[in-house]
Amino acid sequence: MSRLILALDVLEREKAMEIAKKTAPYLYAIKVGWPLVMNAGMDIVREILQFSRVICDFKVADIPNTTRLIVRSAKKYGASGIIVHSFVGRDSVRAAVEEAGDMNVFVVTEMSHPGALDFMQENAKKMVKIALEEGARGIIAPATRPERLREIRKIAGDLLILSPGVGAQGGKARAAIDAGADYIIVGRSIYNASEPEVAARELASIVADGY
Amino acid sequence: MSRLILALDVLEREKAMEIAKKTAPYLYAIKVGWPLVMNAGMDIVREILQFSRVICDFKVADIPNTTRLIVRSAKKYGASGIIVHSFVGRDSVRAAVEEAGDMNVFVVTEMSHPGALDFMQENAKKMVKIALEEGARGIIAPATRPERLREIRKIAGDLLILSPGVGAQGGKARAAIDAGADYIIVGRSIYNASEPEVAARELASIVADGY
Repeated sequence: MSRLILALDVLEREKAMEIAKKTAPYLYAIKVGWPLVMNAGMDIVREILQFSRVICDFKVADIPNTTRLIVRSAKKYGASGIIVHSFVGRDSVRAAVEEAGDMNVFVVTEMSHPGALDFMQENAKKMVKIALEEGARGIIAPATRPERLREIRKIAGDLLILSPGVGAQGGKARAAIDAGADYIIVGRSIYNASEPEVAARELASIVADGY
Repeated sequence: MSRLILALDVLEREKAMEIAKKTAPYLYAIKVGWPLVMNAGMDIVREILQFSRVICDFKVADIPNTTRLIVRSAKKYGASGIIVHSFVGRDSVRAAVEEAGDMNVFVVTEMSHPGALDFMQENAKKMVKIALEEGARGIIAPATRPERLREIRKIAGDLLILSPGVGAQGGKARAAIDAGADYIIVGRSIYNASEPEVAARELASIVADGY
């Protein structure tokens, strides 16, 4: 099983489908976000499913009622996972997990960009605790800060750790795995490569068990 | 000018359009969120524009690059405003404001649900400061807690305050205005009413200047 997740942050349906098809053999899942959905519609989720699992990176950050509606819709379109924020509170995470059923919920605890230091980092451990206690399947923690990843791994129990920020944002793939990530999330280094499938295969190999 | 914003949290395009048409004369704007967009596509924004201004309540909570893409798309579809989170950091708010140009950016400082007490409330004043310093047009602060609204008003300078939580969530329309809100945001009490236009007219009158 690959430990590589592709952040498919392109805007055009055709380009998305082409990259999905080429890279899917080397991926655990494809992560789809709002910009692509705004442009191509939610049907893109269903279309990508023919090649790969889809994780909806919707960073849901709303009241419980709205959270439920977003999760329900993602599930209806066949997503295998959805990413939600815990900063908006335990009740919203609980609503997401309840609504998700057998779809996986991943809770953001800390992000890969500089602004994550403003509010998120100091609260990351409390957010990990909420993810554990509310029955999320995993958390999002940054490959750009392996020392943080290591600390979060220690308290994350059985939660899967998905780690963004590898490549264009500066994180190193193998270092993230060695620091405790279960999966790395890579975007630009794959979809902007002249041969995305080659880039995906190489990254998948670097993060494979026994590398 | 009405001080009433309709949170159009229905899922079906036809119902959304019918309610938009009936209530628009009594509204400042219609707020559209992800559940409707997931179901009806971004075209719903353009369609509602024939009746009313549209504020995209996308509670954007992402890295600066993704934030830019979401803001750009909302603008392309003609939204007059977009709602973003500041807990993801100052850099993401800055990216939103830069990308928005003459579209208004509203920054969430505190929300109307119980979970907002977990992390957001203690940081709300810092988030108001970021909204001010980064040139946002306004902030979101809860009608369910008028005492908080009053405190936030004191430090919010020229920022507009949009205040959700009126009606089904327990907030009182006039109390929110008296506590410093410029606009109240109402959903279920209008779109679930047997005559949404009557509910909208009454609420608009309650929050009008000189009531």
